[in-house]
Amino acid sequence: MMTPVSAYLQAHRERFLAELVEFVRIPSVSTDPAYAEHVQRAAAWVADKLNAAGPLNARVIQTDGHPIVYGEWLGRAGAPTIIVYGHYDVQPPDPLDLWTTPAFEPTVRDGRLYGRGVSDDKGPMLIPIKVAEAFFATTGGLPVNVRFLFEGEEESGSVQLDRFIRERGDLLGADFVLSADGAMWRIDEPSITVASRGLAGLELIVRGANKDLHSGRYGGAVANAAHALARLISSLHDDEGRVAVAGFYDDVEVVSDEERASYTQLGFDEVAYQQSLGVPALVGEPGYTTLERLWIRPTIEVNGLGGGYQGPGGKTVIPSEAFAKITCRLVANQDPDDIQAKVETHLHMHLPPGVTLSVTRDSHGALPYRIPAGHVGLKVAEIALRQVYVQPPLYVRMGGTIPVSESFKRYRNLDTVFFSFSTADEDYHAPNEFLRLHRLDEGLQAWAAYWQALGTEG
Amino acid sequence: MMTPVSAYLQAHRERFLAELVEFVRIPSVSTDPAYAEHVQRAAAWVADKLNAAGPLNARVIQTDGHPIVYGEWLGRAGAPTIIVYGHYDVQPPDPLDLWTTPAFEPTVRDGRLYGRGVSDDKGPMLIPIKVAEAFFATTGGLPVNVRFLFEGEEESGSVQLDRFIRERGDLLGADFVLSADGAMWRIDEPSITVASRGLAGLELIVRGANKDLHSGRYGGAVANAAHALARLISSLHDDEGRVAVAGFYDDVEVVSDEERASYTQLGFDEVAYQQSLGVPALVGEPGYTTLERLWIRPTIEVNGLGGGYQGPGGKTVIPSEAFAKITCRLVANQDPDDIQAKVETHLHMHLPPGVTLSVTRDSHGALPYRIPAGHVGLKVAEIALRQVYVQPPLYVRMGGTIPVSESFKRYRNLDTVFFSFSTADEDYHAPNEFLRLHRLDEGLQAWAAYWQALGTEG
Repeated sequence: MMTPVSAYLQAHRERFLAELVEFVRIPSVSTDPAYAEHVQRAAAWVADKLNAAGPLNARVIQTDGHPIVYGEWLGRAGAPTIIVYGHYDVQPPDPLDLWTTPAFEPTVRDGRLYGRGVSDDKGPMLIPIKVAEAFFATTGGLPVNVRFLFEGEEESGSVQLDRFIRERGDLLGADFVLSADGAMWRIDEPSITVASRGLAGLELIVRGANKDLHSGRYGGAVANAAHALARLISSLHDDEGRVAVAGFYDDVEVVSDEERASYTQLGFDEVAYQQSLGVPALVGEPGYTTLERLWIRPTIEVNGLGGGYQGPGGKTVIPSEAFAKITCRLVANQDPDDIQAKVETHLHMHLPPGVTLSVTRDSHGALPYRIPAGHVGLKVAEIALRQVYVQPPLYVRMGGTIPVSESFKRYRNLDTVFFSFSTADEDYHAPNEFLRLHRLDEGLQAWAAYWQALGTEG
Repeated sequence: MMTPVSAYLQAHRERFLAELVEFVRIPSVSTDPAYAEHVQRAAAWVADKLNAAGPLNARVIQTDGHPIVYGEWLGRAGAPTIIVYGHYDVQPPDPLDLWTTPAFEPTVRDGRLYGRGVSDDKGPMLIPIKVAEAFFATTGGLPVNVRFLFEGEEESGSVQLDRFIRERGDLLGADFVLSADGAMWRIDEPSITVASRGLAGLELIVRGANKDLHSGRYGGAVANAAHALARLISSLHDDEGRVAVAGFYDDVEVVSDEERASYTQLGFDEVAYQQSLGVPALVGEPGYTTLERLWIRPTIEVNGLGGGYQGPGGKTVIPSEAFAKITCRLVANQDPDDIQAKVETHLHMHLPPGVTLSVTRDSHGALPYRIPAGHVGLKVAEIALRQVYVQPPLYVRMGGTIPVSESFKRYRNLDTVFFSFSTADEDYHAPNEFLRLHRLDEGLQAWAAYWQALGTEG
């Protein structure tokens, strides 16, 4: 039997899609100051949509960085209160030339909407706003009390949100957090994510001579910053693929054989995975499967590096500078500050002669996170997903990082349930990001079912 | 006693400087197709100046690349004939933000003219044009027969000039080549360069997955192209700084103990050199002094590398691609094709798992070059330099590469005498390139003395 809310969500689906297109057209890139005005526009757009949905008293709260959008409806006395989290900022769009259609001109192809941020996280975060609209329109209220909290810095480390969570307890009284960010791990079946990896980042600059030198006149007598950088990066792993930073694995939790066995039963197809990525082989830490490498083992990755002449043709210089941006993904019980310190020590110890090194630690680390087994938010998630999908949900971990879950735990002792309808293969941080449109429909129904079930069960 | 030619050169010195400024304003960057129109403008400018100097019948000769400028005066029957060589193209100006004054707005400061190409090679190549003007104006002819040959591709490998030298024997009958390109090795005393290193280049691209991947979702399970690139670059040298490519040193000529001892007597100040470059230490191949590393030993240098996200802030991707531009400096008797093949083989043999590699060999290699001891052109150079400088000239080698000398030898059996008045510290391939103005004056007098002496001695 279709509820009035479900019917409303189906009836207005095309309008919701048009609104999502409008939302994605705003290039709210948070990591590059050049886009700051658009981040502001996106925040205003979100507040408008919340206020259009119902009596949420939504407002844009300015911070020292990008703004936070907050709205609330607390009209269901005795019912649980949840914080709905999402983010309206997006990754940078480059490399631009690899997009089939422009990043900020969303386009539907083959049942998918393509555009930067459509899956991470504009599509998923629009879902609860539209579900609120449906409940207000059909029942005049929500089944539970909801505080909406949307940030504009998820892609740049959630610095302001972290401070907001620390300082604004007055706005954050709740039973738990229901996150519209996150992702189902694959398209074939629904899944519930119970853990995410943490993050620690740093940037290093290697400097040789005080200027770029002619590689003929000086070549052979002076250190080349690009060579020194290459040696430093190579030193981060041993020849087999283990991280070679002293103490890096010291605090890594040993995962039980039972849990590791459960991953095997997920039927993860390594061959198909390899083929989908187009790599000649899957590589990683020896002794672990691909899923284990993604979920229960930490990493060090260079996200970008550069030095010397990168333009067309050639330029015979000895680069005076070369840099790399590095992030580590952490698992319980690694600490971001401790890992930054260990990596920095390693870099200084392995610096080749003839160059100097400067290291800048990113301020926005994140602890790894794991929600307690049996949490009510997980049980309700399973109920809601069973109403939308035939298959029972899988319990999985996530390789990525959602720092906000760690901030909520630390400052407010709130756990976070990830309830996102993006899928892990939707190229969030790459060209041609997309969202499957049927996930949008499923998400709308599932969020409505979640709130309804929580109002009954909670 | 001042000759009329000397007096003319002194009297018109300010105009010559103004012309050089005009010349440097033309951004004739040969390696980047975006500047092609300016390279054409520079060629036309050179031909105009030759024709203004005297009856040289100068013309711009189009090629499949950038044009060649040729002019001649063969009116001195019985006297030697020389080819005067130089190049009117320049290196790219970036990084632009490190220039004190803009690269193509030449500016005089402290007796130096700053601007891209002012020392390499626009200032030095303008000298013989102005010396010809002085001889024609004061004596109606030149003391020797001269063919002027200026190219626009020296910074991109002299491909068209190589072909021109091979095919246009009709324009290249001569006793030897007198090159306005090259450099004196330091400012304290005059020097004559008797050898230059060769060049072999290649570009490599490492590819991992078929797109940039989210470093959380995929990190740990898939090869990172930036890591693989770093390992490849690191593999090019051993831990002590020797090139680790198999067979790289096989054909390197063993330089005599006598010649190595003569370098020691040059009084090269390694401490001052290190300080001027601002490096914490000089590094290079073990067992050799800095001068030996620069003059008689080959190198491999990364000129530029890049991969992943390089913009402001961070972007947590696993780069799908990373590249490096590499050049080797060669000494006798290494062969550029052989070295390219050995480096390429090395790269394929050292490729880490999980990625693919593509290598593109630069087409414009150059053999190392050495002029025979006792060559008449060297003797005349010493005579000319002794008229301008108190100190006797030093005989030195050069770390850089002038491929044209190798082409002249191969196709026309012509040796090349380097007679340039730029100095090795003038930052040709770096920001803030400059030319010392007193070198311009000395060069004008020395070129006039050279032609006069060759007309008498030759």
